[in-house]
Amino acid sequence: VEGFLLKIWRFLEKAWGIGVDEPRKLVHCLKVGLALSAVSLFYYMRPLYDGVGGNAMWAVMTVVVVFEYTVGATLSKSINRTAATFLAGSLGIGIHWVASQSGERFEPIILGFSVFILAAVATFSRFVPSVKARFDYGASIFILTFSLVSVSGYRVEKLVGLAHNRLSTIAIGTSLCIIISMLFCPIWAGDELHSLITRNLEKLSDSLNGCVAEYFHQNGTVDSGGEDCSKKLRGYKCVLNSKATEDSMANFAIWEPAHGNFNFRHPWKQYLKLGASMRYCACCIEALNGCLDTEVEAPEFLKEHLQDVCMILSSCSSNVLKELMITMKTMRRSSKIDFFVGEMNSAVKDLQNGMKSLPTMLSVTPPDTVKGKPGTKTTIPPLMEVLPLATLVSLLIEIAARIEAIVNN
Amino acid sequence: VEGFLLKIWRFLEKAWGIGVDEPRKLVHCLKVGLALSAVSLFYYMRPLYDGVGGNAMWAVMTVVVVFEYTVGATLSKSINRTAATFLAGSLGIGIHWVASQSGERFEPIILGFSVFILAAVATFSRFVPSVKARFDYGASIFILTFSLVSVSGYRVEKLVGLAHNRLSTIAIGTSLCIIISMLFCPIWAGDELHSLITRNLEKLSDSLNGCVAEYFHQNGTVDSGGEDCSKKLRGYKCVLNSKATEDSMANFAIWEPAHGNFNFRHPWKQYLKLGASMRYCACCIEALNGCLDTEVEAPEFLKEHLQDVCMILSSCSSNVLKELMITMKTMRRSSKIDFFVGEMNSAVKDLQNGMKSLPTMLSVTPPDTVKGKPGTKTTIPPLMEVLPLATLVSLLIEIAARIEAIVNN
Repeated sequence: VEGFLLKIWRFLEKAWGIGVDEPRKLVHCLKVGLALSAVSLFYYMRPLYDGVGGNAMWAVMTVVVVFEYTVGATLSKSINRTAATFLAGSLGIGIHWVASQSGERFEPIILGFSVFILAAVATFSRFVPSVKARFDYGASIFILTFSLVSVSGYRVEKLVGLAHNRLSTIAIGTSLCIIISMLFCPIWAGDELHSLITRNLEKLSDSLNGCVAEYFHQNGTVDSGGEDCSKKLRGYKCVLNSKATEDSMANFAIWEPAHGNFNFRHPWKQYLKLGASMRYCACCIEALNGCLDTEVEAPEFLKEHLQDVCMILSSCSSNVLKELMITMKTMRRSSKIDFFVGEMNSAVKDLQNGMKSLPTMLSVTPPDTVKGKPGTKTTIPPLMEVLPLATLVSLLIEIAARIEAIVNN
Repeated sequence: VEGFLLKIWRFLEKAWGIGVDEPRKLVHCLKVGLALSAVSLFYYMRPLYDGVGGNAMWAVMTVVVVFEYTVGATLSKSINRTAATFLAGSLGIGIHWVASQSGERFEPIILGFSVFILAAVATFSRFVPSVKARFDYGASIFILTFSLVSVSGYRVEKLVGLAHNRLSTIAIGTSLCIIISMLFCPIWAGDELHSLITRNLEKLSDSLNGCVAEYFHQNGTVDSGGEDCSKKLRGYKCVLNSKATEDSMANFAIWEPAHGNFNFRHPWKQYLKLGASMRYCACCIEALNGCLDTEVEAPEFLKEHLQDVCMILSSCSSNVLKELMITMKTMRRSSKIDFFVGEMNSAVKDLQNGMKSLPTMLSVTPPDTVKGKPGTKTTIPPLMEVLPLATLVSLLIEIAARIEAIVNN
């Protein structure tokens, strides 16, 4: 029993943490509660319904199913639901009429067969990626409505009335959802996507810096803010794993009307491209991080020789990323970005020069190292650590150039 | 109009391609059609319903909503739906009773307030990751059922009957879904996860091999199967993007009973760990691929010097991956795997030795290169290309070791 209570306690603690970190999620919960009690009371006050099975149900159900975290998701589901219900309803009534004309024996066969075919086709369409991205919910509602209409034994005239009734209750539900989600502290999918990308840019810049700094200080002075620092260092992992979120956000953002700094046809797809380049960059940081963990230690003098150029380069690169972040935030092309890119390029040159002077150093050092340790083997590790960095930098430059072309929002 | 027709044609072509590639998806569609027409006809034959609003609806709706591609997903949704309906129904009836006892004035207030609170809490619980992974659908059904019960104006006695009725129709729907999804060509989430991981292992091994081979042949002999080869080369990208699929499959697989080679409590989480290591490895290949695109060309003699060891190393590594794939397929620890790992380790040593002999070569070459081109700069690129490889290999070894520990299925 005690273990169970402890588990519940931990769960509550976790939930509390989420609430404190993201108060907007709490606001969303309150909005759902508000929408639901509004629609419930609306029906409770005016006896429009005839029990659980009545029309009230459709409005309540619509609110429960359609109300999503972001405005874009709510809109997309609302539109999907209404359009699919309308389409399937008309088709269902049409087929019902055909079936009822063809005599009592064929009626169930025609109905069953049409349900079979349409359900199979609609289910299959959900596997097509472009349909899945935008109309997945619509397809399932289409199947639902169509089979409901087919199952009902009503005559066609009564069905039309019913369909009308159902559509209007769904309309009430969806408009309530849309109004509440757009008026009370709206959470726009576009905003979320924008700030996700901005945050990821910052994380990338932090981890790049932290990663290089950690390597050069790992034996020497330990940095003060230990835990905070290592959290920053792992920031790039979030970038690697954010693809699914970005995709769905971009899909929802398409449905949103103009808001804030974004127009109706804001180029959301560009954000996905930007995200892909960032993931590419994060990959390099991941590989770089792998290099840091190698047990082979670079000789001190080589480390010192390259430390400064590497540090400068990484700080230049993260400057570019930070500047890009500012560009994203202000939605205005920063004038400084060219300057930072130039600085980064010259840092790359410096690093290359630093590498060039290595061979001469090496040809001097072997006699030294032979005296000390296993000799020539020490020539490998420093390069091993420096070169992914150089790769990374050239990637960064490429990305920076690509981003420059993209951010003409 | 022509453009529109062309678009539809392309869409159909794409859909056809999906159907041909994965006939199991077609089978799934037929299964959905079968389940739906079965439940529709069941109700059409026996007049158990009173129109669209009747009980028949719940069974049809359950089938539409619950029937998913994999058995695990269907099971998880079925259990979620039944449990949530039962819980919310009993709670709703309880609160309804309390409200009806407290007089006409307080009744709507109590009901509205309880809907508000419970909807907000249940919505919030969906943000907690552990709940989201397993009980997301249950939470939304909980809200739905609870508000439906609250909205209904029935007296408690009648409500109990209704709830009983609803639960039994849902039970009919879910059991039909479970039976059909498990009996006719069942698609197990566990199988899918297993074959996804196996496929990814193969892709990883192919891209690693292709990547290294492309670099060394890029000026020389162009490989024959151009398109097929470059498709193989890009295989690692699938590995990078498969996290979301893996996670959801593992979540569904937990619900599945024993099937094929898998027990009920098969360690599915191990697959996620394996997937994570593979993604780590794919990251390195991505970084390596970036190095291949650099415009700086390595001098021929260095390339030749390292070509053989690199090729051997990459083929050894991909042998290990292939052997792992076989291990996964047969679910039996292969005896050869240790041998392959040993071979890979000795290849790493060879590469390191190759690198060691470089400095002496370099000290000889400078006078040569000064005659030809910009001189000392040429010393950087070859290392630039070789070292990520060395990094990759050390990662591969690490991964191989980790996998060896894991694959004791």
